[in-house]
Amino acid sequence: MTDTTSPHPLVQAHLGVLEQGRDLLTARGFLSRYPEVPSARHYGETAAADGRAAYEARLNARFTGLDDQPGDGTDVGDEVSPYGPVLGVRYPHLDLDAAVAAAQAALPAWRDAGPTLRAAVLVEVIERLHRRSFELAEAVMHTTGQSWVMAFQAGGPHSQDRALEATVAAWVEQLRVASTTLWEKPQKDAPIRMRKDYRIVPRGIALMVGCNTFPTWNGYPGLFASLATGNPVLVKPHPRAILPLAITVQVIREVLAEQGFDPAIVQLAPEGDGEGLAKTIAQRPEVAIVDYTGGPAFGHWLMAHCGATGKRLYAEQAGVNSIVVDSTDNLRGMLFNLAFSLSLYTGQMCTAPQNIYVPPTVATDQGELSFDDVAQRLAGAIAKLTGDDAKAVDVIGATVNPQVRAHADTHAELAASAPSGHGQVVLASRRVTHPAYPDAVCRTPGLVALDAADQQVYTKEWFGPVAFLVRTESTEQSLQLFTSTIREHGAITGAVYSTDETVLDAARDAAAAAAVNLSENLTQGIFVNQAAAFSDYHATGGNPAANASYADAAFVTGRFVVVAARRHV
Amino acid sequence: MTDTTSPHPLVQAHLGVLEQGRDLLTARGFLSRYPEVPSARHYGETAAADGRAAYEARLNARFTGLDDQPGDGTDVGDEVSPYGPVLGVRYPHLDLDAAVAAAQAALPAWRDAGPTLRAAVLVEVIERLHRRSFELAEAVMHTTGQSWVMAFQAGGPHSQDRALEATVAAWVEQLRVASTTLWEKPQKDAPIRMRKDYRIVPRGIALMVGCNTFPTWNGYPGLFASLATGNPVLVKPHPRAILPLAITVQVIREVLAEQGFDPAIVQLAPEGDGEGLAKTIAQRPEVAIVDYTGGPAFGHWLMAHCGATGKRLYAEQAGVNSIVVDSTDNLRGMLFNLAFSLSLYTGQMCTAPQNIYVPPTVATDQGELSFDDVAQRLAGAIAKLTGDDAKAVDVIGATVNPQVRAHADTHAELAASAPSGHGQVVLASRRVTHPAYPDAVCRTPGLVALDAADQQVYTKEWFGPVAFLVRTESTEQSLQLFTSTIREHGAITGAVYSTDETVLDAARDAAAAAAVNLSENLTQGIFVNQAAAFSDYHATGGNPAANASYADAAFVTGRFVVVAARRHV
Repeated sequence: MTDTTSPHPLVQAHLGVLEQGRDLLTARGFLSRYPEVPSARHYGETAAADGRAAYEARLNARFTGLDDQPGDGTDVGDEVSPYGPVLGVRYPHLDLDAAVAAAQAALPAWRDAGPTLRAAVLVEVIERLHRRSFELAEAVMHTTGQSWVMAFQAGGPHSQDRALEATVAAWVEQLRVASTTLWEKPQKDAPIRMRKDYRIVPRGIALMVGCNTFPTWNGYPGLFASLATGNPVLVKPHPRAILPLAITVQVIREVLAEQGFDPAIVQLAPEGDGEGLAKTIAQRPEVAIVDYTGGPAFGHWLMAHCGATGKRLYAEQAGVNSIVVDSTDNLRGMLFNLAFSLSLYTGQMCTAPQNIYVPPTVATDQGELSFDDVAQRLAGAIAKLTGDDAKAVDVIGATVNPQVRAHADTHAELAASAPSGHGQVVLASRRVTHPAYPDAVCRTPGLVALDAADQQVYTKEWFGPVAFLVRTESTEQSLQLFTSTIREHGAITGAVYSTDETVLDAARDAAAAAAVNLSENLTQGIFVNQAAAFSDYHATGGNPAANASYADAAFVTGRFVVVAARRHV
Repeated sequence: MTDTTSPHPLVQAHLGVLEQGRDLLTARGFLSRYPEVPSARHYGETAAADGRAAYEARLNARFTGLDDQPGDGTDVGDEVSPYGPVLGVRYPHLDLDAAVAAAQAALPAWRDAGPTLRAAVLVEVIERLHRRSFELAEAVMHTTGQSWVMAFQAGGPHSQDRALEATVAAWVEQLRVASTTLWEKPQKDAPIRMRKDYRIVPRGIALMVGCNTFPTWNGYPGLFASLATGNPVLVKPHPRAILPLAITVQVIREVLAEQGFDPAIVQLAPEGDGEGLAKTIAQRPEVAIVDYTGGPAFGHWLMAHCGATGKRLYAEQAGVNSIVVDSTDNLRGMLFNLAFSLSLYTGQMCTAPQNIYVPPTVATDQGELSFDDVAQRLAGAIAKLTGDDAKAVDVIGATVNPQVRAHADTHAELAASAPSGHGQVVLASRRVTHPAYPDAVCRTPGLVALDAADQQVYTKEWFGPVAFLVRTESTEQSLQLFTSTIREHGAITGAVYSTDETVLDAARDAAAAAAVNLSENLTQGIFVNQAAAFSDYHATGGNPAANASYADAAFVTGRFVVVAARRHV
C-alpha cells in the first residue's frame, strides 16, 4: 500500500500524526495530542466562554447543519439535562430508506479513497472536533450529568484521543495488506507467473448506537474505526444524548464535503424517546456492522440478531467491576483512591468498581484492620470526599436517569435481601444539593456489606451509586470470586491491593482467567476507572461485559475484507 | 514480545520457518515448503507404498493412539469409502465432561508457553504430518472420494501449507502486541510513571467441526489458528471423514506430550452417523470459538447460537461461485480451463464454479460465437476431458454422498423448472465406471442453459456436477447478476474472461461489491478452484458463503484477547 506518498494536502498535513500514533500504538506509551487540562494556556482565553455561548445558542432551537441529510419532514428531540434544564433542541428526523440509499451511493468513492487519505480526513475531523472541545463539554455535561471538568476531559480530549487511536489502528491494519504481488510458481519449464492485486473493501453500512453516559467517548471508537475502514456510518444517538453526536456528525460532514466526498458517508439518525430506531436500523440488510454501548436487554437482542444475520457486532454491556483488597502499605492512599473511584460520576462509568472483596483481616501500614474496620474507613473516606456539597458535585456530577436514582435508594433493601442475613448498609447514599442546579439529583455512593455467600445480590450490576464490600474467608477466596463472577457476568475493570508479590501474581492469573484488565495498588493520581488511549486497552473483549476492546487489532480487522484479483503475466 | 529469543530447541529449530512464513505472508509470494508433487525425489522411493500400508493397517480395526483421551467406553465409526469399501475403523468416543475438564486444565500451561513456543511446536507438528502425507492421502481419498492425486495434494502438502499459514498469521498478530511498556504522564511536578504488562490470553475452548469433502484442508486453518493463539481444541470430524483428522490429532498429541505439554490441548471427538455431537459441544459454555465448514442448515443454527451466546464463529457454508464470459483471445485455453474447473472432483469443491454468465455473442480468437456456440463448445471440452473413464476418474474422483448423486440426476428437472421456459440440458452428466472401484459412483459434470430470468434455479447452490450457463443480455447484465447473486447467496470464487480492460475493471468493481476474489482470464495451469496459501486468500469473509478468510488478520485476531496489568513504579 503506497498511498502514504499521496500528495493530497491532508495526507501531507496529517501523515506525521498517523505515524506518531502508529509508533505509540505499538509501544503503548503516553500520548497527549489533545490536552486534558481546560486551561487558557492550551485553549486560549476565550475558549471556555465561546464554547458555552455556542452551546447556549443551540438551546430551544432547531439544530442547524444537518439539513442536507434526507429528512422525513419531522423533527425530534427530548433531551433534558440531568442538571434540570430542558435542552429544547430539535433535530431533523431521517428518511431511513433515503439515508440508506445515500450511504450506499457514497460508499464506492470513500472505499476507493484508500486507507491513508481516509485516515488523514479523519485526523482533520478530530482536529476540528478538538477546537470544539468546550462546546462539546457543555453538550456532554447537559446530556450525561457528568461534572463540567469530567465532561470536558472525557467528552473532549479523551474522546478525541480514542478517535485518533481507532483511526490509527484501522490505518495500520489496512497498510499491512499488500496491494500487489508477483507470484511465481516454479514448473519444469517456465514458471507460472501471476500478478495479484489486493483491495481493501468495507463490509457495508455501519450503525453506531450511542449511549447516554458517554456519547462521544464510547461512540467515537466504533464510529472512527468504521469510517477509517471505508464503511459509511449511521449514528443513532441515545434519545437523551443527541447533541454531542449531532455536533460530531456535523463536523465530519463538513470536512467530508470540503474534501469532495459525499457527506452521506456519515448521517445522524436522531430519535425521540421510545421510537426504537436502533432496532429498525440494525435490521436493515444493508447494515453490516453494529457498534453498541448500553444495557444488556437490547444488547442481547443485538447479539442474537447480528449473529443470526452475519453482522459484525462490537458491544459493551453490563459488568461487575471488581477489586480485591488483600493488604496495603498505603492505607490512606488506597482509601482515597477507592473513595474517588466509587464517587466519580456517581458510579455511572462502565469502569466504576462495584464489588470489593475483603478478607477478615487486612494488613496495612496503620496496623491490621478487620473487615468492619476497612468498611468503616472506606465509608469515612467517601464521606470526607463528598461531604461538602459544592465540592462534591465536581466529582459526582448528577444522576443520569430514573433507574440510577432508584438504585441510589436501594441500599437498605439490598442489604436486607442478602441470603446470609449479614447484609448491612455501611454507608447510605446521600442527596447532595447542587449549588447551581437545584433540580439536579446528585447522590453520593452508598456501601453495602455482604458475605461471600450473597452472590445473588452482588453478581448483578447495580449501575450507579451502589458498591458492595464482600466479606470473604481469605484473599484466595476473593480471587476465586473475582474470577468466577467476571467470567459469568463480565467486567471492564479489575484491581487488587496487596503488598505480597505472590498475591499480585495470583491476581494476574485471576485476571487472565477472567480476561479483565488489572490495576495494582493504585494509591496515586490514577484511578481504576481511567483508561488512556494508545496505552490502556479499554475492556478486553474476553468476558461478557464487552466483546470488543478499544482498540486492539480485532476491533478493526473485522470491519473490512481483502478482495483479490489475479491474472497471468 | 521477546520469546523469539527462547533457547527452546523447537524455537531454535523452527524460528527460521516462522520468519520465512511471516515475510511471505506480508509479500504474498509463492511458498512451497511442502512439495505438491508426490514424487519419489521429494518423498523417497517407498513413501507411497509405506503410506498405503499404514492406511491399510488402520482398516477394520480400532484406531490406536487416542486411548489416553477420556473415553466413555464406547467406540464409533461409520466410515465408508466413496469408492466402495467400508473402512471399518473404530474410534474411542469421548466422555465430553471429562474432555472439557481436561482441556480447561491444559489451558494455562499452553497459554503461558507464549506465542513463539506454541508456533514452534505447531511447525514441528506440521513437519510430522508432512511425513505422513501418503498415509493421509489414502485416508482423505477414502473418506472424501477425491482422486488419489488430489487427495495427496489437497489433503497433504496444501493442507500443511494452510496449517503453516494459519500458525504464522497467529504468531505474527500476537508478536505485534507489546509485552510491556513504561508509561509516563507528565505532571506539574514529577510525572506519573506506570509499568504496564500485556498478556496474550486465549478465549477458551475451541471447537473445530470438520467437513466430509476437505477434512484437513478446510479443518487445519481453524485448528492451527486456535492452537497457535493458546486455545485448546476439540476436533469433531464429519462422521464419514474421521480418519484424516484422527491421524492429525494423534500426531499433535504426540508432539505435545514429547514437549511436556498436556495432550488434552487437542482432543478428537468422533461420532457415528446421526449423533449430532457438534451441536452438543457447541452448546457447552466452556466453548468460546467454533470453526465450521459445511452445509447452511447447521451453519445457520451455529450463527444464531454463537451470536446469542457471544461465541466466535468462523464459518464457511454454501455459495454460488460465478464466472462472467465476455470475450477471449484463447478460446481453447478458456474452454479447457472451464471444463477442468467444472470436472475437478465432480464440482464438490467449495471453490468450484456453478454459474457461467454468457452474453448473446462472445468475441474469440476463433471468431464470434453465439451463446449456443459457447455452450456446445464447453460441453465438447468437458466430454473430451472426461470421455475416457480410466483417465476421467483421476479428475472427477467419486461422488461423496447421496445428495451429490441426486444432483447428478437432476439436470433435466432443473431445465424444465426454469420459469423462462428456455431451460435446456446442454450436457448430461455421465456415469463413469472406475476401473479399480466398480462400486464408486463417478459422474461427469452436466450443463444446463438458463435465461437470466431463471434466478430461482441458479441462485441456489447445487453442490456437485451441476453448472448453469446463464444467457444474459450483455456483459453489463452479467456483471450485475454476478454481484447481486453473490451478495445475497455468497460465493468463494469468481472469474471473468475478457480481452477488454474496461470490462476487467468493471469486473473488479463487481467483485469488490460482491466481496469475492476474482480470477481473470485463466487459460493456463491455474484454475479458479485453486487457492495457494500465503498468497491467495481463501474466501473474503464478506459475503454469505463465508464469514472468514484463510488467513487474514481477522481470522486470528478474534481468537485471543490482551489482558493488561498496570502498577506505579
